[in-house]
Amino acid sequence: MKQVVVGIDVGATSTKIGIVDREGNILDETCTPTPVNTSGARPEGFVLQLHDTITELRGTIKEEYKILAIGIGAPNANYYKGTIEFATNLPWQNEVAPIAELVSKYYPGIPVKLTNDANAAALGEMIYGGARGMKDFISVTLGTGLGSGVICNGEMVYGSDSFAGELGHITMVPNGRKCGCGRKGCLETYVSATGLKQTAFEVMSRHYFTEPSALKKLSFLDMTSKDIADAANQGDEMALEVFDETAKMLAYGLTNAVVLTSPEAIFIYGGLAKAGDLLLTPTRKYLDAHMLKNFCKRDAKGNIVQQANVKILLSDLNDKNGAVLGAAALAWNEQK
Amino acid sequence: MKQVVVGIDVGATSTKIGIVDREGNILDETCTPTPVNTSGARPEGFVLQLHDTITELRGTIKEEYKILAIGIGAPNANYYKGTIEFATNLPWQNEVAPIAELVSKYYPGIPVKLTNDANAAALGEMIYGGARGMKDFISVTLGTGLGSGVICNGEMVYGSDSFAGELGHITMVPNGRKCGCGRKGCLETYVSATGLKQTAFEVMSRHYFTEPSALKKLSFLDMTSKDIADAANQGDEMALEVFDETAKMLAYGLTNAVVLTSPEAIFIYGGLAKAGDLLLTPTRKYLDAHMLKNFCKRDAKGNIVQQANVKILLSDLNDKNGAVLGAAALAWNEQK
Repeated sequence: MKQVVVGIDVGATSTKIGIVDREGNILDETCTPTPVNTSGARPEGFVLQLHDTITELRGTIKEEYKILAIGIGAPNANYYKGTIEFATNLPWQNEVAPIAELVSKYYPGIPVKLTNDANAAALGEMIYGGARGMKDFISVTLGTGLGSGVICNGEMVYGSDSFAGELGHITMVPNGRKCGCGRKGCLETYVSATGLKQTAFEVMSRHYFTEPSALKKLSFLDMTSKDIADAANQGDEMALEVFDETAKMLAYGLTNAVVLTSPEAIFIYGGLAKAGDLLLTPTRKYLDAHMLKNFCKRDAKGNIVQQANVKILLSDLNDKNGAVLGAAALAWNEQK
Repeated sequence: MKQVVVGIDVGATSTKIGIVDREGNILDETCTPTPVNTSGARPEGFVLQLHDTITELRGTIKEEYKILAIGIGAPNANYYKGTIEFATNLPWQNEVAPIAELVSKYYPGIPVKLTNDANAAALGEMIYGGARGMKDFISVTLGTGLGSGVICNGEMVYGSDSFAGELGHITMVPNGRKCGCGRKGCLETYVSATGLKQTAFEVMSRHYFTEPSALKKLSFLDMTSKDIADAANQGDEMALEVFDETAKMLAYGLTNAVVLTSPEAIFIYGGLAKAGDLLLTPTRKYLDAHMLKNFCKRDAKGNIVQQANVKILLSDLNDKNGAVLGAAALAWNEQK
């Protein structure tokens, strides 16, 4: 009988569910709306909705299989406690919702694990992606914000309270840009879809590009990171400068993570990863230039060459249903 | 028969050697000069010198014992390869010295492990110090520079190339103070004995303290971190400001490490740790003020209180022969 896990990704508007085997094949998948935070929905109701959706999904699968575990990627998820805690985008923003316990009532004897989406992406990379066989790596999720998951010695770093891996909130610029976290100068205020747009406006504010640019036609509300990427792909000088500055800040942020945990590779995942080489080529350039010498290559005579050892790679999961695979990987990782 | 390990700390001028039991009792200890980098000494000669010193030391111990392992703390030590690589303060600065292999020739069948002194301090904290029972913590060594060792999931983080844990080289201030590593704005240029003195001169340069201060009488060459601590302990306003600024930078640096690895505690070890509450009290203040909310305490109603969860503690090893205990802990840690 085929062994599978259920991977669940609780997104901002939609919750995706997939039934996934050990090789990362999604036998079938579906989705159900995530309750909005003003809906008054209770965790019990949402878990019943999940269970109904899973039951319906299971009905569509012809072959015989056995569910070994359930993995859930969700905002503010506490891995140790199996809870979603004070999640501002969910209807239970002022409480600790015991999701794993509630789900377990429908699936007795089956382990249920939760973690946040960025950690799930890192586990997805380890189980299904480019990090297979690596002991030390970091996964960076570039979307509206910057999330990350850190793997050391082949294990996820949750830390003492389960909330480790917040690379997006290391302080890059003292008294820098205001961050949603209430602090200033965090990496994600510069490196994220939001940060990219802010940098576009900073570049426009700083000096006048005489050449025409598509970006000049767009308001702050209208401009998206895709507009900036499209312009850059057409050689727009200003848009290229925006990517160059974003890459520089990303490289400096990654360098801070490298000197602390020395990963073999850093995987870039998420919406902004679609920019591909537009972002990665200058990121590698700045990473090489800024890397601490201990973490650089040496030539045959042992002289340090200013070229970072760490590999910067696009995640394999960008082309797949990475969020569901990440949640499934969390479930598989408990089967060791 | 008592089981022991040999702990060896290769310092800048002197190499300390101790024979240490599982409980951290040093049965006996001694030291031998570290060859200076212009001496032309070969690694083979230094290892023979170590062996002779160990043999002499063993002769002084009356009770019967068995050596289980040898641990060595040394600059530029590669844990994975057992080598000292391109160490600028040793006579073999342009090569990779296979120290573990050379030592093993004198002690066949006994494991020989190397790591740098800051990692050894972290292991000492884990085996003998305040971190016993902790799974996730960071040890910070404040001396001429700032070293660190990171423990996640109960294991030392060496990373892909063995050089992880360089908290002293995260970039705190873009284009900040020049660092010995060739880069700018590294944490250790602000938080270290050297950084403390530079901050004293920055404070003096910035505004004129009308009150008398012992620091005004000292040249840059003469001033030491002890002078600044002594002045601060006597209520010297300017010296207190120097510690306040140093603590602020330390707190911001530690916050960056906390959001990435979420340690339960951070242990402060090394010469500058002697400043004690002069440094720790303002560090805790700034850490509370600057900590990302996820890593802060909550009150009974679940509201976040701006007080960091992570404990900032003086290392127990400061009052002991911490360097030898750290090297011994490295050896014990291989016995698991």
